[in-house]
Amino acid sequence: MTGLDTDLQLSDQRKYAALEVVLEAFRPEAIIHYGEQPSAPYSMIDHDRAVFTQVNNLAGTLNVLWALREVVPDCHLVKLGTMGEYGTPNIDIEEGFLEVEYKGRKDVLPYPKQAGSFYHLSKVHDSHNILFACRAWKLRSTDLNQGVVYGIETDETQRDERLATSFHYDEVFGTALNRFCVQAVIGLPLTVYGKGGQTRGFLNIRDTLRCVELAVLNAPRAGEYRVFNQFTETFNVLGLAEMVQREGEKLGLAVKIQHLENPRVEAEQHYYNPVHRKLIDLGLAPHLLSDVLLDSMLLRVREFAHRVKKEIILPRVRWDGAREAATDAKLAWAAPRAHED
Amino acid sequence: MTGLDTDLQLSDQRKYAALEVVLEAFRPEAIIHYGEQPSAPYSMIDHDRAVFTQVNNLAGTLNVLWALREVVPDCHLVKLGTMGEYGTPNIDIEEGFLEVEYKGRKDVLPYPKQAGSFYHLSKVHDSHNILFACRAWKLRSTDLNQGVVYGIETDETQRDERLATSFHYDEVFGTALNRFCVQAVIGLPLTVYGKGGQTRGFLNIRDTLRCVELAVLNAPRAGEYRVFNQFTETFNVLGLAEMVQREGEKLGLAVKIQHLENPRVEAEQHYYNPVHRKLIDLGLAPHLLSDVLLDSMLLRVREFAHRVKKEIILPRVRWDGAREAATDAKLAWAAPRAHED
Repeated sequence: MTGLDTDLQLSDQRKYAALEVVLEAFRPEAIIHYGEQPSAPYSMIDHDRAVFTQVNNLAGTLNVLWALREVVPDCHLVKLGTMGEYGTPNIDIEEGFLEVEYKGRKDVLPYPKQAGSFYHLSKVHDSHNILFACRAWKLRSTDLNQGVVYGIETDETQRDERLATSFHYDEVFGTALNRFCVQAVIGLPLTVYGKGGQTRGFLNIRDTLRCVELAVLNAPRAGEYRVFNQFTETFNVLGLAEMVQREGEKLGLAVKIQHLENPRVEAEQHYYNPVHRKLIDLGLAPHLLSDVLLDSMLLRVREFAHRVKKEIILPRVRWDGAREAATDAKLAWAAPRAHED
Repeated sequence: MTGLDTDLQLSDQRKYAALEVVLEAFRPEAIIHYGEQPSAPYSMIDHDRAVFTQVNNLAGTLNVLWALREVVPDCHLVKLGTMGEYGTPNIDIEEGFLEVEYKGRKDVLPYPKQAGSFYHLSKVHDSHNILFACRAWKLRSTDLNQGVVYGIETDETQRDERLATSFHYDEVFGTALNRFCVQAVIGLPLTVYGKGGQTRGFLNIRDTLRCVELAVLNAPRAGEYRVFNQFTETFNVLGLAEMVQREGEKLGLAVKIQHLENPRVEAEQHYYNPVHRKLIDLGLAPHLLSDVLLDSMLLRVREFAHRVKKEIILPRVRWDGAREAATDAKLAWAAPRAHED
C-alpha cells in the first residue's frame, strides 16, 4: 500500500532478553517508545491496576534504556511523555527544565512535577530515569510531553479503511473531546466534570505524527535529554463542550451541557501557560482545532452511531477512594492506542 | 530487656493482601517504612538489580499507601527518603519544596530532583507517589530525606551485644566513613573516589533514631506531605578521610590516603548548601562527629579486625557501564539495615 518495506515483530518489552535480541537484529537509529499503559482513570481503579501501571511503564522503560546502553548506545530514544507530568503550577510551564534564580544563585533544573494520577506519575518516573541514563551513559533521548490528542483521520488512514485509528470515548481510555462528539451525536448531554475550567494542551492526530517525525529527523547529541511540549493549543473542558454544542447545532443536533461532580482530584480553575516552542522551531505547522475539523469528526461519529455503547461513557472511577467498585464487566478494556490524556 | 511489650510479625510488603491483614489487626497510629533496597551501587550492578531495586521500592511503597487508604487513613506514614534525591544543584537545597518566583509569578513547588543512581531515583519516585497520595486521599506523611549515617552504638545496643547494629564497609552496602575506619585499622590506604570534593550530609545513628521519634511524636495534619532533611553536618569525602587519618595516627596507626578513579558518575567539586532546620525546630540536639566518636569507632572496629574481608572493599561496580562484570561471589550480599547512602 505504501510501497515501503516494513517488518513487524511482536515482543514484550518487560522481557529484557527478548528486547536485546530485537535490537541486536535490527540495530535501529531511533526507537519510538509507545509501549505503556496510557490511561489515568485505569491507574486509579484499584490497587492492582495502580501497581500494574507503574511497574509496567517503569520497568519497560528501564529495560529499553538498559538495552540501548548494551546494544545500540548511539540510538535515539523518542519517548512518549505527557503534559500531565507538570500538573497545573501557578507559573509558566517550560519545556522540561526551569531556569531558577534563588537567593542570588542560578541553575537550570528539571521542571518540578505534580502529576495527578498514578498513570501520570509513571511518566514522571520515566522522565527522571531517562534523564539519569542520558547523563550517566551518554544516551540521547527526546521526551515528547504530549497533550490530549484529537482527530480521527490522517493521510495514511484515508488510504484504506483497515488503517482506521482506534477511537476511545469511554470513561477509562476516552478523552473529553471524543466523549462530547459521541454524546452530541447520540442525543445525550455533554458531561463536563466539575466546573470545566480545567485547561489542557491539545493537538491534532496529524500533528502528533509530524512531531514524532521531527524529533527523529533532528536527533539530540549524545548525552542529551531534551523535552518537547507537544501540543498546539490550550482549551478548557467547558470551552470544548461549547464548541461541540455549537457545531452540533449547525448539523441539526439538539445538544445540552451537563456538569457532573468531578470524579478526579484536580484544580477546576487554575493558571495555565505552558510553552510549546521547540517543535514549532523544528518546522511543525499546526493543524488547529477548527469548525471544519469538529464538523468532520461529528459526521464520522454519526456513521458509527449505531455501535456506540452508552453504558461505558459515564465516570465510575473516582480519585478520592469513594468510588463505586469497578468491575471488568462494567468497563471497556480495549487496548488503547495513540490517545494520551 | 526494655520492659516494653513488643510484637514481631514477618511479612512481605510486596504482597498487598498480607499488608492489609497486618494493618487490620494492629491498626497503627504511625508506620515507619524502612522496607527498601538501600544501596546505590547495588542498583547499578546490572539490569536485573536496577529493575529489582526500582520495582521493589516503588511497588512496596505503593502497597503501603494503598493499604493506609483502605484500612487506616489517619495513620502517619514516616518514610525513609534520602538527601541523594536532590543531587547537587547550584542553588540551596530546601526541605522538599522550593518557593519559585518566575516571570513575575510565584508558587511553592516540589524541589527539583536530580538523583544519581537507580536506587536514589527509586526514592524520588516514592516521593512523587506519596505527595500525590496525600493530596488525593488526605493521607499524612513525613519523608525523612536522610544523609549518610555513621556510628555503631546507641543506648539500646549498649545493653546487650545481641542488639549490635550491622556495620557495612564493603563497596556495595558500606559507606565512606565505615570504609575509612576499617582501612585505617587493617593498614590499607583510605580510598577516596576521585578528587574527594563530593560533599554530603551526615548524621550520627543516635540522631537518626531521635529524628524518627520526633517525626512520630509530631504528626502532620491530614493531607499533609512534609519533608525533613535529616542530617546534622556536611563533610566532603576527602575531609572525612583526613579526619580518620588524624585520629588513626593518634592511636598509633600509619594511615595513607589514596585517590581512586571514581566509579560513579557524579560532580567531584560542587556547591552544596542544604537546609536542615525542621528537625532542629522540633527539638533535635545533634551529636556531632567529634574526635571522641571517631576514636571510639576505630577502637570498636579494631576489636573485630580479624574478621574484616579485604576483598570486598574496593569498588568494582561502575556507573558508566565500563564496569568489571560483578558476580555474586565477589560481592557481599548481606542484607543492609539502617545505613543510607
